[in-house]
Amino acid sequence: MGDSVNSPDPIAEAHRQWSSRWPEHADQMAAVTSVMRVQQLLLSRIETALKPYGLTFAAYEALRLLAFTRTGSLPMGKMGVRLMVHPASVTNVIGRLERRGLVQRRPSPDDRRVVLAEITPAGREIAEESTAALHKASFGLPDLPDEQAAGITAALRAVRVAVGEVADHP
Amino acid sequence: MGDSVNSPDPIAEAHRQWSSRWPEHADQMAAVTSVMRVQQLLLSRIETALKPYGLTFAAYEALRLLAFTRTGSLPMGKMGVRLMVHPASVTNVIGRLERRGLVQRRPSPDDRRVVLAEITPAGREIAEESTAALHKASFGLPDLPDEQAAGITAALRAVRVAVGEVADHP
Repeated sequence: MGDSVNSPDPIAEAHRQWSSRWPEHADQMAAVTSVMRVQQLLLSRIETALKPYGLTFAAYEALRLLAFTRTGSLPMGKMGVRLMVHPASVTNVIGRLERRGLVQRRPSPDDRRVVLAEITPAGREIAEESTAALHKASFGLPDLPDEQAAGITAALRAVRVAVGEVADHP
Repeated sequence: MGDSVNSPDPIAEAHRQWSSRWPEHADQMAAVTSVMRVQQLLLSRIETALKPYGLTFAAYEALRLLAFTRTGSLPMGKMGVRLMVHPASVTNVIGRLERRGLVQRRPSPDDRRVVLAEITPAGREIAEESTAALHKASFGLPDLPDEQAAGITAALRAVRVAVGEVADHP
């Protein structure tokens, strides 16, 4: 890291290359490259913090979501919507959590065609401990003031609005 | 998508959950979740645009970087620095491009211990065509004004500064 802070920023370099050839696409290229790079940085830091709990970030998010619910359970389909992932990914993540005894699947008492994922007491314990670990690691965002973090969420919300994932109002 | 724009934003929901329990970590959680989500959205759109060329985004970036150089070649080690990836990833990506005849590896004439990756004429052709395809797809960022794209780059730069990847000046 000591070295890299003295090197030119590769994203700024790429922006310069683009600006001289395709100026109308330079800002988009830099934004996309920045998202890819920062995702990689954060994921690596987050997965380090979660490693002692044997959780990927996707598994953590699923467990955390269940721990937030009043009953500790949600229909699998609803989990996909809330986690913004494909149903097959929910099945995969919940399957792995179930094999570790952190979640169990059962038919909904209201509609037996609906499968519920339910967090177990062991799952709740891991959810609390891993949340504390992520807080200690500041979700991989050290020394970043709240306003800057909120600025990232707002800037990226524009992308989510542009692709139709969320509506254009808060 | 028609449905999802009418649903509450899952990231805003999670922010509310966090604010009521751990307000001091809510903004960081939302920022990190936004980065993860938008990376997933963009990557999927970008890889769709690159699919006709048989390129991942990482392979595209490596090819594009070589096409930008004066000689069409760079030492493998330097590619890792410019692409901000691990040397093993560079070896992997260049190996796959080499098997397709888009790149070739050879010892540097200046220092035979240094391995150069060099783009071939076929590689240059694919680099130009795939760049045009990404431009047509706006890098997955439809309808996003340049200022908003630049805002994303600036907001995320704060993270790259915080982890020591780039220096705190433009």
